[in-house]
Amino acid sequence: MNAIEELREYFAEITRLNYISSLLNWDQEVNMMNYKSVEGRAKQVSLISKLIHQRITSEKVGKLIKEAEKLTLNEIENAMLREITREYNLETKLPVELVIEIAETSVLAAKNWRDARKKSDFSIFEKILEKTVELQKEKAEKLDTHPDLYSTLIDLYEPGANYEWIANIFNPIKPKLIDFVKKLNSSSDKPDDSIFNKHYDEDKQFELSNKIIKKLNFDFGYGRNDKVTHPFTQTLASQDTRITTRTSEPFPDCITSTIHEYGHAIYEMGIKKELHDTILCTGTSMGIHESQSRMWENIVGRSKEFWMYWYPTFQKYFPENLKDYPLEDFHRAINIVQPSFIRVNADEVTYGLHIILRFEIEKDLIEGKIQVNELPEIWNTNFEELLGIVPPNDALGVLQDVHWSGGAIGYFPTYFLGNLYGAQIYAKVLERMPNLHDDYKKGEFSNLLNYLRENIHQYGSIYRANELIKRVTGEDLNSDYFLKYIEEKFYPIYRL
Amino acid sequence: MNAIEELREYFAEITRLNYISSLLNWDQEVNMMNYKSVEGRAKQVSLISKLIHQRITSEKVGKLIKEAEKLTLNEIENAMLREITREYNLETKLPVELVIEIAETSVLAAKNWRDARKKSDFSIFEKILEKTVELQKEKAEKLDTHPDLYSTLIDLYEPGANYEWIANIFNPIKPKLIDFVKKLNSSSDKPDDSIFNKHYDEDKQFELSNKIIKKLNFDFGYGRNDKVTHPFTQTLASQDTRITTRTSEPFPDCITSTIHEYGHAIYEMGIKKELHDTILCTGTSMGIHESQSRMWENIVGRSKEFWMYWYPTFQKYFPENLKDYPLEDFHRAINIVQPSFIRVNADEVTYGLHIILRFEIEKDLIEGKIQVNELPEIWNTNFEELLGIVPPNDALGVLQDVHWSGGAIGYFPTYFLGNLYGAQIYAKVLERMPNLHDDYKKGEFSNLLNYLRENIHQYGSIYRANELIKRVTGEDLNSDYFLKYIEEKFYPIYRL
Repeated sequence: MNAIEELREYFAEITRLNYISSLLNWDQEVNMMNYKSVEGRAKQVSLISKLIHQRITSEKVGKLIKEAEKLTLNEIENAMLREITREYNLETKLPVELVIEIAETSVLAAKNWRDARKKSDFSIFEKILEKTVELQKEKAEKLDTHPDLYSTLIDLYEPGANYEWIANIFNPIKPKLIDFVKKLNSSSDKPDDSIFNKHYDEDKQFELSNKIIKKLNFDFGYGRNDKVTHPFTQTLASQDTRITTRTSEPFPDCITSTIHEYGHAIYEMGIKKELHDTILCTGTSMGIHESQSRMWENIVGRSKEFWMYWYPTFQKYFPENLKDYPLEDFHRAINIVQPSFIRVNADEVTYGLHIILRFEIEKDLIEGKIQVNELPEIWNTNFEELLGIVPPNDALGVLQDVHWSGGAIGYFPTYFLGNLYGAQIYAKVLERMPNLHDDYKKGEFSNLLNYLRENIHQYGSIYRANELIKRVTGEDLNSDYFLKYIEEKFYPIYRL
Repeated sequence: MNAIEELREYFAEITRLNYISSLLNWDQEVNMMNYKSVEGRAKQVSLISKLIHQRITSEKVGKLIKEAEKLTLNEIENAMLREITREYNLETKLPVELVIEIAETSVLAAKNWRDARKKSDFSIFEKILEKTVELQKEKAEKLDTHPDLYSTLIDLYEPGANYEWIANIFNPIKPKLIDFVKKLNSSSDKPDDSIFNKHYDEDKQFELSNKIIKKLNFDFGYGRNDKVTHPFTQTLASQDTRITTRTSEPFPDCITSTIHEYGHAIYEMGIKKELHDTILCTGTSMGIHESQSRMWENIVGRSKEFWMYWYPTFQKYFPENLKDYPLEDFHRAINIVQPSFIRVNADEVTYGLHIILRFEIEKDLIEGKIQVNELPEIWNTNFEELLGIVPPNDALGVLQDVHWSGGAIGYFPTYFLGNLYGAQIYAKVLERMPNLHDDYKKGEFSNLLNYLRENIHQYGSIYRANELIKRVTGEDLNSDYFLKYIEEKFYPIYRL
């Protein structure tokens, strides 16, 4: 075996340990919601983190990297070496004690956050969030890959990105979005979504969401869909990607959020066999990941043609609500644009504002300009500036997201990047297949899936996000596509 | 830290890795029933097995053991050193390749077994079972703790036991059980269990089983109950013990089997905090474990007084079946003694014969006197000799149990030992608390639980089975208690 082959084999074990770590997390989220103690689990998570860290940072890896650099490598091997080097450089900067502390803290914080959110009491979460933020600052300081701490953290989720690059994208969109929301809401013929205030049986919602993803080629022989508080997707092996959903929120959250998670899962499931169990066997960045989930959720899953196919089934499932309710109105209802408190339930347009809020707060938090105990107030103040409304309590405000509890600071901006990437990719898809939406009317979604598999999914992390978007669309990330997409979509819906 | 403290800390990590391995298994059984591939999981299981093996067999452990032997140890430290030494001696005899192969094979065999059972087609399972048996033989040869291979395997599950000791217990009971079954069935006034042929809603069964274990002090803050094909109990952390059940079998299997698994779980949950995360934090042997599960399932859960409390609730849940059906007849029905095919559904009396069948087959299989491909035929022939009936297919015969797929050969005899231990312990309990059954009538079960916690559960593996039974009952295992128990119980039920 040469050095790159040795690295490949060595990192297969690390990948497996990562999958095991994912199972520990998946299981906690899905199965331990009512547990009184997660201390045992926390110790297990930190043990696996320690093992991963020790393996990545072993001298052997450093030596093999040096040897591999001298070899003539093919494209995949090159990408593998790039990612292995990146991991090695990052992890060797972190002391093992910090890795363990972050891992243990995240398990306990997840529990505290859940309790705090349930009781809408920020004080339950405050202390451990302070610790979490401090640990993330310390981590960023040790990693020191960028001049500013926040960029260092962002780069962990969106390799190649930094604060300035994102700010330069978000800043010009921010006023445009605020204006666009106002403009839509000035319409004299706005959609009405009161139909969603009716009762929709939870079991039927879950059944329908599974029916839809099955039709979208989600294979239950290689994955699952389970109910949780906060939906997420997790890959537990090269042939085991699990999504989660909730039926507790107002309809049709379960449906749209299931399609969203499906978009993540189908990306992971489409990575070519050659990459299985390698460091490249995952989506290339959170932004690209989110482009897939949001494309399926919003561009496909809220399109007129999608509902031309599905609506009759929904009418059969919920005749008491939908039998006499026109498709046209239903389609308008699920595309209503209006300021609301919960990010994951936000529409495609206001969604970006929810992200910009977090992006700006995270920046200040990491730089110490604001303190954890000020978060609830700052959240509410900034929320009003961006969305014009004030959360009535912290469960609907600063406590709504799980991310910070897991130490995932710098993750949020990738969500909105996903919207932008998605719109740009989809514009290209439509250029190639102008009649794609006719397929949807017939319940045929594999043309889009095949395109994505061929051009994006199969490659896993071979290409970095910026390289990938250029390969697929011929240009760098360009937010005009998104702005054009929402204008073309929402003006007609709002009869403007 | 002195040597024993170092060992304690070192083995805490091993315990955690074992818990992680348990989660990998629990998740496969509960969540991956419909998976097309478990290869990724198999690799993860074998990786963890390898890590555990490497840790146990490290030179450091050998050195620390020698140092610890020179120290003055307290009772717990002594027991810890005994178990650590045992593990070290066992594992150092096994080459890591064998450990990995056994682990990987067991995951694939579990899948093949499930498929074979579903289709009642032994050929699907045959090849991997052959490999499994060979691997177990090889393991026993390497371990070489007893003159015969089967004793070496038995000792893994029931430390201190061997083939001869068990044969000496089982052999005299065998004809007595066969006679007793015949005698009961010669009664002119036998119980009638046709009431169980009616339909019992599966959700209600599951709800009731949870209601019962809750009343028996199972704390859902430290455990779960989930549906599976083949019920089992698994501890995933010191404060996380999960039981499983099935509602698919004829009523009241779900109820009795849930109480059975509860008995296992409540043992693990009652181990004192001092032992958490140590090598002693588990039941001391499979036989003692089974004494707890069978005591709760049969001696308590099929007693007249238990049903005097629960039957009205059951009548409310299933009025269409039970409203006008007398308690007396229900109690007789759930205590029917009659030859049947499936071990886990067998009554308390014929159960031992199911075990003796496996015990004798395993002995011959491990010694090479019979081959895997002969198993279906031998199973059926021997089954007829012991129970007087012949399984109509392999799903109801040789394919019914999961154990062999996991390589657990030598495990079965501990089940019947459990019946015997259980009856002996319970006789002691009644000596101390002669009016215990009056509690049951009032739905009060904590007096028994407290006794078991105080005398058995809290100690985990501090005392070996033979020591424990002597401490608790004042004598060695004595099967007379079981024979007396079944006579006193079943003659009245059979009006003899």
